[in-house]
Amino acid sequence: MSLDFEALYSKNAQNLKKSVIRELLKLTNKPEIISFAGGLPAPCTFPVEDIKEIVGKVLDQEYMKALQYGATEGDVGLKEELVKFLKERNIPWITPDHLLITTASQQALDMVGKVFIDPGDSVIVGLPSYIGALGAFNAYRANLIGIPLLLDGMDVAYFKKTLKELNLKKKIPKFVYVIPDFQNPAGITFSLKTRKELLSLAHEYGFIIIEDAPYRELRYNGKAVPSLLELDKGEGMVLTLFTFSKIFIPGFRLGWIAGHPDLISKFVIAKQSMDLCTPPFTQCIAREYLKKGEINNRIRDNIALYKVKKDLMLECLDKEMPKNAGVTWTKPEGGLFLFTYLPESISADEMFHDAIKENVAYVIGSAFYCNGKGHNTFRLNFSYPSHQEIREGIKRLGNCVKKKLTGTKRSASACQGD
Amino acid sequence: MSLDFEALYSKNAQNLKKSVIRELLKLTNKPEIISFAGGLPAPCTFPVEDIKEIVGKVLDQEYMKALQYGATEGDVGLKEELVKFLKERNIPWITPDHLLITTASQQALDMVGKVFIDPGDSVIVGLPSYIGALGAFNAYRANLIGIPLLLDGMDVAYFKKTLKELNLKKKIPKFVYVIPDFQNPAGITFSLKTRKELLSLAHEYGFIIIEDAPYRELRYNGKAVPSLLELDKGEGMVLTLFTFSKIFIPGFRLGWIAGHPDLISKFVIAKQSMDLCTPPFTQCIAREYLKKGEINNRIRDNIALYKVKKDLMLECLDKEMPKNAGVTWTKPEGGLFLFTYLPESISADEMFHDAIKENVAYVIGSAFYCNGKGHNTFRLNFSYPSHQEIREGIKRLGNCVKKKLTGTKRSASACQGD
Repeated sequence: MSLDFEALYSKNAQNLKKSVIRELLKLTNKPEIISFAGGLPAPCTFPVEDIKEIVGKVLDQEYMKALQYGATEGDVGLKEELVKFLKERNIPWITPDHLLITTASQQALDMVGKVFIDPGDSVIVGLPSYIGALGAFNAYRANLIGIPLLLDGMDVAYFKKTLKELNLKKKIPKFVYVIPDFQNPAGITFSLKTRKELLSLAHEYGFIIIEDAPYRELRYNGKAVPSLLELDKGEGMVLTLFTFSKIFIPGFRLGWIAGHPDLISKFVIAKQSMDLCTPPFTQCIAREYLKKGEINNRIRDNIALYKVKKDLMLECLDKEMPKNAGVTWTKPEGGLFLFTYLPESISADEMFHDAIKENVAYVIGSAFYCNGKGHNTFRLNFSYPSHQEIREGIKRLGNCVKKKLTGTKRSASACQGD
Repeated sequence: MSLDFEALYSKNAQNLKKSVIRELLKLTNKPEIISFAGGLPAPCTFPVEDIKEIVGKVLDQEYMKALQYGATEGDVGLKEELVKFLKERNIPWITPDHLLITTASQQALDMVGKVFIDPGDSVIVGLPSYIGALGAFNAYRANLIGIPLLLDGMDVAYFKKTLKELNLKKKIPKFVYVIPDFQNPAGITFSLKTRKELLSLAHEYGFIIIEDAPYRELRYNGKAVPSLLELDKGEGMVLTLFTFSKIFIPGFRLGWIAGHPDLISKFVIAKQSMDLCTPPFTQCIAREYLKKGEINNRIRDNIALYKVKKDLMLECLDKEMPKNAGVTWTKPEGGLFLFTYLPESISADEMFHDAIKENVAYVIGSAFYCNGKGHNTFRLNFSYPSHQEIREGIKRLGNCVKKKLTGTKRSASACQGD
């Protein structure tokens, strides 16, 4: 007799569904497909020679520490380097006690869920928002409430109205999850005004702001807006998630959380039961890389590389997408993604299969909408593909959209004729 | 105004308490203290030169893969090597679909909690049992039910009685958590009979057996007993947690789960929202180490090293502990720990502070008892300390115990005199 596993699963686990995106991404694995689907950094940005040198040094000088179990809080030296890193970024009040090293940001998101969410708790996210965060919060059966994103960030008027309604129902959110810089997937950046309004609402209603900042260092145009962590001035309303994945090495799975020491203490206790500690080996490597002072050069080089790719993708979209047909896209000032809107009548979910036939792939936008909308949208990544692939891929995609538009018009006239 | 963080925490997080052990361990950090408290492998077992060579090769030949994001399921090549590893260990039906790479066993324990436990669910553990597992399950507010351990494993008669009572209350456990080989902290090994009875009860009542096997490879005496995974023959009643921490490198945080593919699929979905993937960099290193065929040599060398230490500690205990005073300890056939029982009247929790004054440390046994008992017990680790430290440390500990016994006798006679 085999067990009925389903009957043994927790309610949270029963709620965990296979990701639609993962199933779709399996279709994009053929070598002839040009994929704009992933969110991968370009491998040419990985500082392989530096890593080689540092690994040698770490194994020679501190293998007993680097290969052993480590403290849950993270490597002390790495935290000291991160204090300096954040000081250079206008966050001078951060001490090691404000920091926790994580097994990259996805673990931080899982921790946020574990520490804050009881089933049914209100959690505010953007429409659209990062699918990995939606997944992490759904795994704790949060009641995700979406607030539309405008070009300058969350729609504050809409958010205020929502908060008033939630307040009447005594359902004030535990936290608001935002990616204020070069949002994934929308590519938009929150204005200073929006950030300040968010903070003021956090104070008024008593919720935490989870600021996810994976792309913040990757700004290609315009002037940096102060981070929410900076604006918080250590008051403890903001918990910011950082990662080395987009500026150093994703394969190390290394990130860090910055926030109020009381919150950090709670997260440390949670992390103890989650993985004891983040691998000390890669923490030592990251610490030495920061000590060498290489990280700022690395970020500068990433910016130079990705800016050109972003500009090229925008140029190709301008050239290849049908004009005056209601097809628009965001013009991100940084990050890895831009977001495309088709006319409401066209489903990007359906068009995905046409795109695969044309050997080009994207991520369907609807996966990023917690309210089941966004079927006319899709996300494009420009950091991973080559220039050649961007040119050819956007051309193929333009053809898909054009065909779809013509098809829709035809079937519309056919309907009228019936 | 600062936020009232406590009011925002989930019920599970409110349940997460600071670990008593961690607080006590902080007292053991002074260099003059000989510590038997940790569960650390000896650093001389870390194959530093092999790692150096392999890292060079991995960075030369596959940096684009090793430093990039990876599949949630784990590195395909590493899983193939683990299939071979398990085949050599009499588990021939394992395929890559039976395996999931984890960020070491603590993540696997957290996953077990996430996938199976709703608040209040019955979960069976040993009295005593690994504190990290108790912590992980407590974080999901399991109702932990302890079954005493005998010298040949779980007390099956007691367990049967408990199951009958739970059955009447419709509270059949979701799973039973066991460490059948060289249990942490008790150092005992489950007999074949006990293992078979456990499996038969799992079939009868329909629960999963979580077999934690971190020490299984480290057998110093006697003959190996078939693992529960082997006895299960692929029927899916057993999910086994393995780790590289005790046989290769703890600082990589690498482990794997083996079990029924349907269960593994559920765990993969859970892991996606927990950390996306285990670091591909260290997975590639482990894969190459296995490919070199070095792991069996490494295990053989660890066994040689630890057997001598274990025997030395037993010899020292024989010499230093008071005779005929009700002080006993387990004689493990493998693993990293042995467990000491003082007379019921003596508190090892209180004696801890005396021990620290004598510059020797252990872990208080009560931390491993989910029922608040075990105050007369403590755990000793023999893998990390040197021979010299074992000799001197056990001498100091013997003195502590002797003083405590005399003190107890004195105060007893003082009482009688009153």
